Amino acid sequence: MSNQPRLAFIGLGIMGQAMAMRLVEADYRLIVYNRTRAKASPLLARGARAAATPAAAAAEADVVFICVTNTPDVKQVCTGPGGIIESARAGLVVVDHSTISPEATVALAADFAARGSVFLDAPVSGGDVGAQNGTLSIMVGGDGAAFERVEPVLRQMGQTITYCGPSGHGQLTKLVNQILVSVTNLAVCEALVFARKYGLNLEKTLAAVAGGAAGSWQLANLGPKMIEGDFRPGFTISLQQKDLHLVLEAAERTHTSLAATSLVHQFFSAAQAAGHGKDGTQALYTVVDKLSSPQ
Amino acid sequence: MSNQPRLAFIGLGIMGQAMAMRLVEADYRLIVYNRTRAKASPLLARGARAAATPAAAAAEADVVFICVTNTPDVKQVCTGPGGIIESARAGLVVVDHSTISPEATVALAADFAARGSVFLDAPVSGGDVGAQNGTLSIMVGGDGAAFERVEPVLRQMGQTITYCGPSGHGQLTKLVNQILVSVTNLAVCEALVFARKYGLNLEKTLAAVAGGAAGSWQLANLGPKMIEGDFRPGFTISLQQKDLHLVLEAAERTHTSLAATSLVHQFFSAAQAAGHGKDGTQALYTVVDKLSSPQ
Repeated sequence: MSNQPRLAFIGLGIMGQAMAMRLVEADYRLIVYNRTRAKASPLLARGARAAATPAAAAAEADVVFICVTNTPDVKQVCTGPGGIIESARAGLVVVDHSTISPEATVALAADFAARGSVFLDAPVSGGDVGAQNGTLSIMVGGDGAAFERVEPVLRQMGQTITYCGPSGHGQLTKLVNQILVSVTNLAVCEALVFARKYGLNLEKTLAAVAGGAAGSWQLANLGPKMIEGDFRPGFTISLQQKDLHLVLEAAERTHTSLAATSLVHQFFSAAQAAGHGKDGTQALYTVVDKLSSPQ
Repeated sequence: MSNQPRLAFIGLGIMGQAMAMRLVEADYRLIVYNRTRAKASPLLARGARAAATPAAAAAEADVVFICVTNTPDVKQVCTGPGGIIESARAGLVVVDHSTISPEATVALAADFAARGSVFLDAPVSGGDVGAQNGTLSIMVGGDGAAFERVEPVLRQMGQTITYCGPSGHGQLTKLVNQILVSVTNLAVCEALVFARKYGLNLEKTLAAVAGGAAGSWQLANLGPKMIEGDFRPGFTISLQQKDLHLVLEAAERTHTSLAATSLVHQFFSAAQAAGHGKDGTQALYTVVDKLSSPQ
Protein backbone atom coordinates (compact mmCIF):
# COMPACT_ATOMS: atom_id res chain seq x y z
CA MET A 1 0.00 0.00 0.00
CA SER A 2 1.43 3.39 -0.98
CA ASN A 3 1.17 6.42 1.26
CA GLN A 4 -1.99 7.33 -0.60
CA PRO A 5 -3.96 4.10 -0.87
CA ARG A 6 -6.64 3.82 -3.52
CA LEU A 7 -10.02 3.72 -1.82
CA ALA A 8 -13.46 2.28 -2.58
CA PHE A 9 -16.71 3.05 -0.81
CA ILE A 10 -19.74 0.74 -0.93
CA GLY A 11 -23.06 2.10 0.35
CA LEU A 12 -23.94 5.76 -0.12
CA GLY A 13 -26.82 6.32 2.27
CA ILE A 14 -26.91 9.39 4.51
CA MET A 15 -23.92 8.18 6.53
CA GLY A 16 -21.90 6.59 3.73
CA GLN A 17 -22.28 9.51 1.38
CA ALA A 18 -21.06 12.00 3.97
CA MET A 19 -18.14 9.78 4.94
CA ALA A 20 -17.13 9.17 1.32
CA MET A 21 -17.31 12.90 0.65
CA ARG A 22 -14.74 13.54 3.36
CA LEU A 23 -12.38 11.08 1.64
CA VAL A 24 -12.80 12.82 -1.72
CA GLU A 25 -12.24 16.18 -0.08
CA ALA A 26 -9.01 14.84 1.43
CA ASP A 27 -7.90 14.11 -2.17
CA TYR A 28 -7.99 10.35 -1.94
CA ARG A 29 -8.57 8.50 -5.19
CA LEU A 30 -12.05 7.05 -4.72
CA ILE A 31 -14.27 4.61 -6.56
CA VAL A 32 -17.83 4.14 -5.32
CA TYR A 33 -20.67 1.66 -5.61
CA ASN A 34 -24.30 2.02 -4.55
CA ARG A 35 -27.35 -0.06 -5.42
CA THR A 36 -29.23 3.13 -6.30
CA ARG A 37 -26.73 4.69 -8.69
CA ALA A 38 -28.11 8.25 -8.54
CA LYS A 39 -26.84 8.60 -4.97
CA ALA A 40 -23.29 8.62 -6.32
CA SER A 41 -23.83 11.85 -8.28
CA PRO A 42 -22.53 14.37 -5.72
CA LEU A 43 -19.37 12.26 -5.32
CA LEU A 44 -18.87 11.81 -9.06
CA ALA A 45 -19.17 15.59 -9.41
CA ARG A 46 -16.21 15.86 -7.01
CA GLY A 47 -14.04 13.45 -8.98
CA ALA A 48 -14.94 10.02 -7.68
CA ARG A 49 -15.57 7.24 -10.18
CA ALA A 50 -18.44 4.74 -10.16
CA ALA A 51 -18.10 0.96 -10.35
CA ALA A 52 -20.73 -1.45 -11.66
CA THR A 53 -20.33 -3.95 -8.80
CA PRO A 54 -18.63 -4.11 -5.39
CA ALA A 55 -16.14 -6.54 -6.95
CA ALA A 56 -15.27 -4.02 -9.66
CA ALA A 57 -14.77 -1.31 -7.06
CA ALA A 58 -12.57 -3.56 -4.94
CA ALA A 59 -10.48 -4.58 -7.96
CA GLU A 60 -9.16 -1.02 -8.22
CA ALA A 61 -8.76 -0.28 -4.53
CA ASP A 62 -6.37 -1.04 -1.66
CA VAL A 63 -8.98 -0.34 0.99
CA VAL A 64 -12.73 -0.89 0.62
CA PHE A 65 -15.13 0.81 3.03
CA ILE A 66 -18.66 -0.51 3.50
CA CYS A 67 -21.53 1.42 5.05
CA VAL A 68 -24.85 -0.34 4.60
CA THR A 69 -27.70 -1.11 6.99
CA ASN A 70 -27.77 -4.65 8.27
CA THR A 71 -26.07 -8.04 8.34
CA PRO A 72 -27.67 -9.38 5.12
CA ASP A 73 -26.63 -6.21 3.25
CA VAL A 74 -23.00 -6.63 4.28
CA LYS A 75 -23.04 -10.32 3.33
CA GLN A 76 -24.54 -9.39 -0.04
CA VAL A 77 -21.85 -6.84 -0.96
CA CYS A 78 -19.08 -9.08 0.40
CA THR A 79 -19.92 -12.63 -0.64
CA GLY A 80 -23.00 -12.25 -2.89
CA PRO A 81 -22.80 -12.20 -6.73
CA GLY A 82 -20.38 -9.47 -7.80
CA GLY A 83 -19.26 -9.15 -4.19
CA ILE A 84 -15.98 -7.79 -2.88
CA ILE A 85 -14.63 -11.27 -2.21
CA GLU A 86 -14.37 -11.86 -5.96
CA SER A 87 -11.57 -9.29 -5.99
CA ALA A 88 -10.04 -10.34 -2.68
CA ARG A 89 -6.26 -10.72 -2.73
CA ALA A 90 -3.26 -10.34 -0.46
CA GLY A 91 -3.10 -6.81 0.93
CA LEU A 92 -6.74 -5.85 0.40
CA VAL A 93 -8.33 -4.39 3.55
CA VAL A 94 -12.13 -4.24 3.90
CA VAL A 95 -13.44 -1.85 6.56
CA ASP A 96 -17.09 -2.37 7.51
CA HIS A 97 -18.69 0.72 9.06
CA SER A 98 -22.15 -0.90 9.25
CA THR A 99 -23.53 -2.08 12.59
CA ILE A 100 -24.08 -5.82 12.15
CA SER A 101 -23.92 -9.14 13.95
CA PRO A 102 -20.57 -9.73 15.71
CA GLU A 103 -20.93 -13.42 14.89
CA ALA A 104 -21.43 -12.77 11.15
CA THR A 105 -18.47 -10.39 11.33
CA VAL A 106 -16.14 -13.12 12.58
CA ALA A 107 -17.33 -15.42 9.77
CA LEU A 108 -16.73 -12.75 7.10
CA ALA A 109 -13.28 -12.02 8.51
CA ALA A 110 -12.45 -15.71 8.15
CA ASP A 111 -13.72 -15.73 4.53
CA PHE A 112 -11.45 -12.83 3.63
CA ALA A 113 -8.50 -14.20 5.61
CA ALA A 114 -8.71 -17.39 3.51
CA ARG A 115 -7.95 -15.18 0.48
CA GLY A 116 -5.14 -13.23 2.14
CA SER A 117 -7.34 -10.18 2.74
CA VAL A 118 -8.37 -8.50 5.99
CA PHE A 119 -11.91 -7.66 7.08
CA LEU A 120 -12.12 -5.09 9.89
CA ASP A 121 -15.34 -4.29 11.74
CA ALA A 122 -15.51 -0.54 12.32
CA PRO A 123 -19.02 0.57 13.30
CA VAL A 124 -19.51 4.25 13.99
CA SER A 125 -21.56 6.48 16.22
CA GLY A 126 -22.15 10.20 15.99
CA GLY A 127 -24.92 10.42 13.40
CA ASP A 128 -25.11 12.34 10.14
CA VAL A 129 -23.65 15.46 11.73
CA GLY A 130 -20.62 13.50 12.92
CA ALA A 131 -20.24 11.98 9.46
CA GLN A 132 -20.33 15.39 7.78
CA ASN A 133 -17.88 16.95 10.22
CA GLY A 134 -15.54 13.99 10.52
CA THR A 135 -16.21 13.71 14.25
CA LEU A 136 -17.53 10.15 14.35
CA SER A 137 -16.54 7.63 16.99
CA ILE A 138 -15.17 4.56 15.22
CA MET A 139 -14.85 1.26 17.08
CA VAL A 140 -12.53 -1.13 15.30
CA GLY A 141 -12.07 -4.89 15.63
CA GLY A 142 -9.83 -7.25 13.67
CA ASP A 143 -6.22 -7.48 12.53
CA GLY A 144 -4.16 -4.90 14.43
CA ALA A 145 -1.54 -4.33 11.75
CA ALA A 146 -4.24 -3.67 9.12
CA PHE A 147 -5.88 -1.25 11.54
CA GLU A 148 -2.66 0.72 11.82
CA ARG A 149 -2.39 0.93 8.03
CA VAL A 150 -5.91 2.30 7.55
CA GLU A 151 -5.97 4.51 10.63
CA PRO A 152 -4.80 7.65 8.76
CA VAL A 153 -7.79 7.28 6.42
CA LEU A 154 -10.16 6.68 9.34
CA ARG A 155 -8.92 9.97 10.84
CA GLN A 156 -10.57 11.79 7.90
CA MET A 157 -13.93 10.47 9.09
CA GLY A 158 -13.66 10.09 12.84
CA GLN A 159 -12.37 11.84 15.94
CA THR A 160 -12.46 9.09 18.58
CA ILE A 161 -10.96 6.02 16.94
CA THR A 162 -10.57 3.03 19.24
CA TYR A 163 -8.93 -0.28 18.41
CA CYS A 164 -11.13 -2.59 20.49
CA GLY A 165 -9.50 -5.97 19.88
CA PRO A 166 -9.97 -9.00 17.61
CA SER A 167 -12.62 -9.41 14.92
CA GLY A 168 -16.12 -8.64 16.26
CA HIS A 169 -14.93 -6.51 19.17
CA GLY A 170 -15.70 -3.32 17.29
CA GLN A 171 -19.29 -4.49 16.77
CA LEU A 172 -19.56 -5.61 20.40
CA THR A 173 -18.33 -2.21 21.59
CA LYS A 174 -20.96 -0.55 19.38
CA LEU A 175 -23.60 -2.79 21.00
CA VAL A 176 -22.37 -1.69 24.43
CA ASN A 177 -22.89 1.86 23.20
CA GLN A 178 -26.46 1.05 22.14
CA ILE A 179 -27.31 -0.51 25.52
CA LEU A 180 -26.16 2.69 27.24
CA VAL A 181 -27.91 4.98 24.80
CA SER A 182 -31.23 3.12 24.98
CA VAL A 183 -31.54 2.55 28.72
CA THR A 184 -30.40 6.10 29.47
CA ASN A 185 -33.04 7.31 27.02
CA LEU A 186 -35.67 5.43 29.05
CA ALA A 187 -34.33 7.04 32.24
CA VAL A 188 -35.03 10.45 30.70
CA CYS A 189 -38.53 9.42 29.57
CA GLU A 190 -39.57 8.15 33.00
CA ALA A 191 -38.14 11.20 34.75
CA LEU A 192 -39.97 13.63 32.47
CA VAL A 193 -43.29 11.76 32.55
CA PHE A 194 -43.12 11.69 36.37
CA ALA A 195 -42.35 15.42 36.40
CA ARG A 196 -45.10 16.32 33.95
CA LYS A 197 -47.75 14.35 35.83
CA TYR A 198 -46.98 16.49 38.91
CA GLY A 199 -47.05 19.72 36.92
CA LEU A 200 -43.39 20.58 37.43
CA ASN A 201 -41.86 23.21 35.18
CA LEU A 202 -39.95 20.85 32.91
CA GLU A 203 -37.31 23.33 31.70
CA LYS A 204 -36.50 24.29 35.30
CA THR A 205 -36.43 20.63 36.29
CA LEU A 206 -33.93 19.84 33.54
CA ALA A 207 -31.77 22.80 34.54
CA ALA A 208 -31.81 21.73 38.19
CA VAL A 209 -30.62 18.17 37.60
CA ALA A 210 -28.69 18.06 34.31
CA GLY A 211 -25.36 19.25 35.73
CA GLY A 212 -25.03 16.61 38.45
CA ALA A 213 -25.07 12.85 38.94
CA ALA A 214 -28.30 12.64 36.91
CA GLY A 215 -26.67 14.17 33.84
CA SER A 216 -26.24 12.44 30.50
CA TRP A 217 -25.95 13.17 26.79
CA GLN A 218 -29.45 11.74 26.36
CA LEU A 219 -30.88 14.10 29.01
CA ALA A 220 -29.14 17.17 27.64
CA ASN A 221 -29.92 16.46 23.99
CA LEU A 222 -33.15 14.44 23.89
CA GLY A 223 -34.78 15.86 27.06
CA PRO A 224 -35.57 19.27 25.53
CA LYS A 225 -36.92 17.59 22.38
CA MET A 226 -39.22 15.37 24.46
CA ILE A 227 -40.50 18.46 26.29
CA GLU A 228 -41.19 20.25 23.00
CA GLY A 229 -42.67 17.16 21.32
CA ASP A 230 -40.02 17.44 18.61
CA PHE A 231 -39.68 13.89 17.31
CA ARG A 232 -37.67 14.66 14.17
CA PRO A 233 -35.05 11.95 13.84
CA GLY A 234 -31.40 12.23 14.72
CA PHE A 235 -31.40 8.43 14.87
CA THR A 236 -34.65 6.62 14.09
CA ILE A 237 -36.44 4.15 16.33
CA SER A 238 -36.42 1.59 13.49
CA LEU A 239 -32.63 1.71 13.27
CA GLN A 240 -32.30 1.58 17.05
CA GLN A 241 -34.54 -1.48 17.06
CA LYS A 242 -32.31 -3.15 14.49
CA ASP A 243 -29.35 -2.53 16.81
CA LEU A 244 -31.18 -3.66 19.96
CA HIS A 245 -32.11 -6.84 18.11
CA LEU A 246 -28.38 -7.41 17.59
CA VAL A 247 -27.74 -6.65 21.27
CA LEU A 248 -30.32 -9.10 22.54
CA GLU A 249 -29.25 -11.77 20.05
CA ALA A 250 -25.64 -11.40 21.19
CA ALA A 251 -26.73 -11.39 24.85
CA GLU A 252 -28.72 -14.58 24.33
CA ARG A 253 -25.68 -16.33 22.90
CA THR A 254 -23.78 -15.72 26.15
CA HIS A 255 -26.79 -16.17 28.46
CA THR A 256 -26.61 -12.54 29.53
CA SER A 257 -29.79 -11.26 31.18
CA LEU A 258 -30.43 -7.63 30.20
CA ALA A 259 -33.76 -6.75 31.80
CA ALA A 260 -33.72 -2.99 31.18
CA THR A 261 -32.40 -3.24 27.62
CA SER A 262 -35.09 -5.80 26.87
CA LEU A 263 -37.71 -3.48 28.35
CA VAL A 264 -36.61 -0.62 26.10
CA HIS A 265 -36.78 -2.96 23.11
CA GLN A 266 -40.39 -3.78 23.98
CA PHE A 267 -41.28 -0.13 24.46
CA PHE A 268 -39.72 0.73 21.11
CA SER A 269 -41.93 -1.99 19.60
CA ALA A 270 -44.91 -0.17 21.08
CA ALA A 271 -43.60 3.06 19.55
CA GLN A 272 -43.35 1.34 16.16
CA ALA A 273 -46.90 0.02 16.53
CA ALA A 274 -48.06 3.60 17.11
CA GLY A 275 -46.35 4.76 13.92
CA HIS A 276 -43.19 6.24 15.44
CA GLY A 277 -40.69 3.96 13.65
CA LYS A 278 -39.31 6.74 11.49
CA ASP A 279 -39.27 9.25 14.36
CA GLY A 280 -36.20 9.91 16.46
CA THR A 281 -35.45 7.73 19.48
CA GLN A 282 -36.75 10.51 21.74
CA ALA A 283 -40.26 9.41 20.67
CA LEU A 284 -39.80 6.64 23.25
CA TYR A 285 -41.27 9.34 25.49
CA THR A 286 -44.69 8.87 23.85
CA VAL A 287 -44.83 5.23 24.98
CA VAL A 288 -43.98 5.99 28.61
CA ASP A 289 -46.40 8.92 28.57
CA LYS A 290 -49.23 6.93 27.00
CA LEU A 291 -48.89 4.19 29.63
CA SER A 292 -49.94 6.67 32.31
CA SER A 293 -52.47 8.67 30.32
CA PRO A 294 -56.27 8.51 30.48
CA GLN A 295 -56.70 7.36 26.89
CA MET B 1 -34.63 39.56 59.29
CA SER B 2 -31.36 41.50 59.43
CA ASN B 3 -28.73 41.22 56.73
CA GLN B 4 -27.06 38.56 58.87
CA PRO B 5 -29.89 36.29 59.99
CA ARG B 6 -29.36 34.10 63.03
CA LEU B 7 -29.23 30.48 61.91
CA ALA B 8 -30.03 27.09 63.42
CA PHE B 9 -29.08 23.69 62.04
CA ILE B 10 -30.88 20.48 63.02
CA GLY B 11 -29.27 17.17 62.06
CA LEU B 12 -25.50 16.83 61.99
CA GLY B 13 -24.89 13.67 59.99
CA ILE B 14 -22.24 13.54 57.28
CA MET B 15 -24.16 15.98 55.09
CA GLY B 16 -25.58 18.27 57.78
CA GLN B 17 -22.29 18.63 59.61
CA ALA B 18 -20.44 19.66 56.48
CA MET B 19 -23.19 22.10 55.47
CA ALA B 20 -23.36 23.64 58.96
CA MET B 21 -19.58 24.00 58.97
CA ARG B 22 -19.74 26.15 55.83
CA LEU B 23 -22.23 28.45 57.59
CA VAL B 24 -19.95 28.83 60.62
CA GLU B 25 -17.00 29.47 58.35
CA ALA B 26 -19.01 32.22 56.64
CA ASP B 27 -19.33 33.85 60.10
CA TYR B 28 -23.03 33.27 60.54
CA ARG B 29 -24.24 33.04 64.14
CA LEU B 30 -25.24 29.38 64.44
CA ILE B 31 -27.02 27.23 66.98
CA VAL B 32 -27.15 23.50 66.40
CA TYR B 33 -29.12 20.47 67.53
CA ASN B 34 -28.41 16.79 67.01
CA ARG B 35 -29.87 13.72 68.68
CA THR B 36 -26.34 12.40 69.26
CA ARG B 37 -24.81 15.44 70.93
CA ALA B 38 -21.16 14.47 70.36
CA LYS B 39 -21.55 15.14 66.64
CA ALA B 40 -21.83 18.86 67.40
CA SER B 41 -18.29 19.03 68.83
CA PRO B 42 -16.42 20.16 65.67
CA LEU B 43 -18.98 22.94 65.19
CA LEU B 44 -18.91 24.02 68.84
CA ALA B 45 -15.13 24.22 68.57
CA ARG B 46 -15.64 26.74 65.73
CA GLY B 47 -18.01 28.94 67.76
CA ALA B 48 -21.45 27.42 67.24
CA ARG B 49 -23.69 26.91 70.26
CA ALA B 50 -25.74 23.80 71.10
CA ALA B 51 -29.45 23.72 71.90
CA ALA B 52 -31.23 21.09 74.00
CA THR B 53 -34.16 20.70 71.59
CA PRO B 54 -35.11 21.75 68.05
CA ALA B 55 -37.61 24.19 69.63
CA ALA B 56 -34.85 25.80 71.69
CA ALA B 57 -32.66 26.16 68.61
CA ALA B 58 -35.52 27.67 66.59
CA ALA B 59 -36.35 30.12 69.39
CA GLU B 60 -33.03 31.88 68.84
CA ALA B 61 -32.92 31.73 65.04
CA ASP B 62 -34.44 33.47 62.04
CA VAL B 63 -33.79 30.53 59.71
CA VAL B 64 -33.74 26.88 60.75
CA PHE B 65 -32.10 24.31 58.47
CA ILE B 66 -32.95 20.62 58.76
CA CYS B 67 -30.88 17.78 57.36
CA VAL B 68 -32.08 14.41 58.62
CA THR B 69 -32.78 11.11 56.86
CA ASN B 70 -36.43 10.42 56.25
CA THR B 71 -40.00 11.67 56.52
CA PRO B 72 -40.57 10.49 60.13
CA ASP B 73 -37.34 12.21 61.24
CA VAL B 74 -38.43 15.53 59.75
CA LYS B 75 -41.88 15.21 61.32
CA GLN B 76 -40.24 14.44 64.67
CA VAL B 77 -37.99 17.52 64.72
CA CYS B 78 -40.79 19.73 63.36
CA THR B 79 -43.97 18.67 65.14
CA GLY B 80 -42.82 16.09 67.72
CA PRO B 81 -42.20 16.96 71.40
CA GLY B 82 -39.72 19.83 71.60
CA GLY B 83 -40.13 20.33 67.87
CA ILE B 84 -39.48 23.48 65.86
CA ILE B 85 -43.17 24.26 65.59
CA GLU B 86 -43.23 25.12 69.32
CA SER B 87 -41.10 28.16 68.48
CA ALA B 88 -42.86 28.96 65.20
CA ARG B 89 -43.77 32.61 64.74
CA ALA B 90 -44.17 35.20 62.03
CA GLY B 91 -40.96 35.54 60.05
CA LEU B 92 -39.42 32.18 60.92
CA VAL B 93 -38.26 30.26 57.86
CA VAL B 94 -37.61 26.51 58.06
CA VAL B 95 -35.49 25.05 55.25
CA ASP B 96 -35.61 21.25 54.97
CA HIS B 97 -32.60 19.78 53.15
CA SER B 98 -33.71 16.19 53.78
CA THR B 99 -35.19 14.11 50.96
CA ILE B 100 -38.70 13.21 52.14
CA SER B 101 -42.25 12.68 50.92
CA PRO B 102 -43.60 15.58 48.82
CA GLU B 103 -47.03 14.93 50.32
CA ALA B 104 -45.73 15.17 53.92
CA THR B 105 -43.85 18.31 52.87
CA VAL B 106 -47.05 20.04 51.78
CA ALA B 107 -48.69 19.10 55.10
CA LEU B 108 -45.77 20.45 57.14
CA ALA B 109 -45.75 23.67 55.12
CA ALA B 110 -49.45 24.11 56.00
CA ASP B 111 -48.71 23.49 59.71
CA PHE B 112 -46.06 26.20 59.72
CA ALA B 113 -48.12 28.60 57.61
CA ALA B 114 -50.89 28.38 60.23
CA ARG B 115 -48.38 29.92 62.68
CA GLY B 116 -47.12 32.59 60.30
CA SER B 117 -43.93 30.69 59.50
CA VAL B 118 -42.65 29.33 56.21
CA PHE B 119 -41.48 25.77 55.54
CA LEU B 120 -39.37 25.38 52.39
CA ASP B 121 -38.40 22.02 50.92
CA ALA B 122 -34.80 22.20 49.74
CA PRO B 123 -33.36 18.72 49.12
CA VAL B 124 -29.82 18.55 47.87
CA SER B 125 -27.67 16.44 45.61
CA GLY B 126 -23.91 16.33 45.29
CA GLY B 127 -22.92 14.10 48.19
CA ASP B 128 -20.49 14.69 51.03
CA VAL B 129 -17.89 16.21 48.72
CA GLY B 130 -20.44 18.74 47.46
CA ALA B 131 -21.45 19.53 51.03
CA GLN B 132 -17.83 20.12 52.07
CA ASN B 133 -17.04 22.29 49.05
CA GLY B 134 -20.32 24.19 48.93
CA THR B 135 -21.07 22.84 45.46
CA LEU B 136 -24.37 21.11 46.17
CA SER B 137 -27.39 21.34 43.90
CA ILE B 138 -30.32 22.62 45.96
CA MET B 139 -33.88 22.22 44.68
CA VAL B 140 -36.28 24.53 46.49
CA GLY B 141 -40.07 24.48 46.77
CA GLY B 142 -42.41 26.74 48.74
CA ASP B 143 -42.97 30.44 49.34
CA GLY B 144 -41.04 32.41 46.71
CA ALA B 145 -40.43 35.51 48.84
CA ALA B 146 -39.01 33.41 51.69
CA PHE B 147 -36.78 31.64 49.16
CA GLU B 148 -35.36 34.98 48.05
CA ARG B 149 -34.60 35.93 51.66
CA VAL B 150 -32.70 32.73 52.41
CA GLU B 151 -30.98 32.39 49.02
CA PRO B 152 -27.79 34.23 50.12
CA VAL B 153 -27.36 31.67 52.92
CA LEU B 154 -28.04 28.78 50.54
CA ARG B 155 -25.24 30.11 48.33
CA GLN B 156 -22.78 29.22 51.12
CA MET B 157 -23.76 25.59 50.70
CA GLY B 158 -24.76 25.16 47.07
CA GLN B 159 -23.72 26.08 43.56
CA THR B 160 -26.81 25.22 41.49
CA ILE B 161 -29.76 26.60 43.40
CA THR B 162 -33.12 26.25 41.62
CA TYR B 163 -36.44 27.60 42.77
CA CYS B 164 -38.72 24.84 41.48
CA GLY B 165 -42.16 26.13 42.44
CA PRO B 166 -44.71 25.70 45.24
CA SER B 167 -44.31 23.52 48.32
CA GLY B 168 -43.26 19.97 47.43
CA HIS B 169 -41.79 20.86 44.03
CA GLY B 170 -38.26 20.82 45.43
CA GLN B 171 -38.82 17.26 46.67
CA LEU B 172 -40.44 16.24 43.38
CA THR B 173 -37.48 17.62 41.44
CA LYS B 174 -35.15 15.64 43.69
CA LEU B 175 -37.18 12.52 42.93
CA VAL B 176 -36.83 13.25 39.20
CA ASN B 177 -33.08 13.37 39.87
CA GLN B 178 -33.20 9.97 41.58
CA ILE B 179 -35.13 8.38 38.68
CA LEU B 180 -32.43 9.58 36.29
CA VAL B 181 -29.54 8.55 38.53
CA SER B 182 -30.93 5.07 39.18
CA VAL B 183 -32.00 4.04 35.69
CA THR B 184 -28.81 5.45 34.17
CA ASN B 185 -26.87 3.44 36.76
CA LEU B 186 -28.64 0.28 35.50
CA ALA B 187 -27.75 1.24 31.92
CA VAL B 188 -24.08 1.22 32.92
CA CYS B 189 -24.40 -2.12 34.73
CA GLU B 190 -26.03 -3.90 31.79
CA ALA B 191 -23.51 -2.44 29.33
CA LEU B 192 -20.52 -3.55 31.40
CA VAL B 193 -21.87 -7.03 32.15
CA PHE B 194 -22.56 -7.52 28.43
CA ALA B 195 -19.03 -6.35 27.63
CA ARG B 196 -17.37 -8.50 30.29
CA LYS B 197 -19.20 -11.66 29.20
CA TYR B 198 -17.69 -11.18 25.73
CA GLY B 199 -14.23 -10.51 27.12
CA LEU B 200 -13.98 -6.95 25.90
CA ASN B 201 -11.29 -4.74 27.38
CA LEU B 202 -13.52 -2.74 29.71
CA GLU B 203 -11.32 0.34 30.06
CA LYS B 204 -11.04 0.62 26.27
CA THR B 205 -14.76 0.08 25.92
CA LEU B 206 -15.51 2.91 28.34
CA ALA B 207 -13.07 5.18 26.54
CA ALA B 208 -14.65 4.38 23.18
CA VAL B 209 -18.22 5.25 24.18
CA ALA B 210 -18.12 7.69 27.12
CA GLY B 211 -17.64 10.82 25.03
CA GLY B 212 -20.69 10.39 22.81
CA ALA B 213 -24.44 9.80 22.98
CA ALA B 214 -23.86 6.97 25.47
CA GLY B 215 -22.14 9.28 27.94
CA SER B 216 -23.38 10.08 31.44
CA TRP B 217 -22.13 11.09 34.87
CA GLN B 218 -22.96 7.59 36.07
CA LEU B 219 -20.86 6.00 33.30
CA ALA B 220 -17.90 8.30 33.83
CA ASN B 221 -17.92 8.09 37.63
CA LEU B 222 -19.40 4.71 38.57
CA GLY B 223 -18.27 2.75 35.48
CA PRO B 224 -14.58 2.64 36.50
CA LYS B 225 -15.56 1.68 40.07
CA MET B 226 -17.69 -1.21 38.78
CA ILE B 227 -14.77 -2.40 36.65
CA GLU B 228 -12.42 -2.30 39.65
CA GLY B 229 -14.96 -3.82 42.05
CA ASP B 230 -14.66 -0.72 44.23
CA PHE B 231 -17.99 -0.57 46.05
CA ARG B 232 -17.06 2.03 48.68
CA PRO B 233 -20.04 4.33 49.06
CA GLY B 234 -20.44 7.79 47.61
CA PHE B 235 -24.16 7.30 48.13
CA THR B 236 -25.33 4.04 49.70
CA ILE B 237 -27.83 1.62 48.21
CA SER B 238 -29.91 1.82 51.42
CA LEU B 239 -30.31 5.59 51.03
CA GLN B 240 -31.06 5.23 47.34
CA GLN B 241 -33.73 2.67 48.20
CA LYS B 242 -35.29 5.10 50.65
CA ASP B 243 -35.46 7.67 47.83
CA LEU B 244 -36.78 5.19 45.25
CA HIS B 245 -39.48 4.23 47.74
CA LEU B 246 -40.50 7.89 47.78
CA VAL B 247 -40.41 7.97 43.96
CA LEU B 248 -42.63 4.93 43.56
CA GLU B 249 -45.02 6.11 46.29
CA ALA B 250 -45.35 9.48 44.57
CA ALA B 251 -45.74 7.77 41.18
CA GLU B 252 -48.48 5.54 42.53
CA ARG B 253 -50.42 8.57 43.77
CA THR B 254 -50.60 9.93 40.22
CA HIS B 255 -50.95 6.53 38.50
CA THR B 256 -47.60 6.95 36.80
CA SER B 257 -46.14 3.70 35.47
CA LEU B 258 -42.35 3.67 35.87
CA ALA B 259 -41.24 0.26 34.67
CA ALA B 260 -37.48 0.84 34.61
CA THR B 261 -37.37 2.71 37.93
CA SER B 262 -39.37 -0.08 39.50
CA LEU B 263 -36.96 -2.63 38.06
CA VAL B 264 -33.97 -0.83 39.57
CA HIS B 265 -35.77 -0.74 42.92
CA GLN B 266 -36.20 -4.52 42.78
CA PHE B 267 -32.57 -5.05 41.79
CA PHE B 268 -31.43 -2.83 44.68
CA SER B 269 -33.55 -5.06 46.96
CA ALA B 270 -31.55 -8.01 45.66
CA ALA B 271 -28.35 -6.08 46.38
CA GLN B 272 -29.55 -5.46 49.93
CA ALA B 273 -30.38 -9.16 50.34
CA ALA B 274 -26.80 -9.95 49.33
CA GLY B 275 -25.44 -7.59 51.98
CA HIS B 276 -24.68 -4.60 49.76
CA GLY B 277 -27.00 -2.11 51.52
CA LYS B 278 -24.13 -0.05 52.91
CA ASP B 279 -22.13 -0.21 49.69
CA GLY B 280 -22.25 2.49 47.05
CA THR B 281 -24.95 2.45 44.38
CA GLN B 282 -22.39 1.10 41.89
CA ALA B 283 -22.80 -2.27 43.67
CA LEU B 284 -25.97 -2.60 41.56
CA TYR B 285 -23.47 -4.10 39.14
CA THR B 286 -23.18 -7.22 41.34
CA VAL B 287 -26.89 -7.97 40.89
CA VAL B 288 -26.82 -7.69 37.11
CA ASP B 289 -23.59 -9.69 37.01
CA LYS B 290 -24.88 -12.42 39.32
CA LEU B 291 -28.02 -12.87 37.18
CA SER B 292 -25.86 -14.08 34.31
CA SER B 293 -23.22 -15.96 36.27
CA PRO B 294 -22.86 -19.73 36.74
CA GLN B 295 -23.36 -19.64 40.51
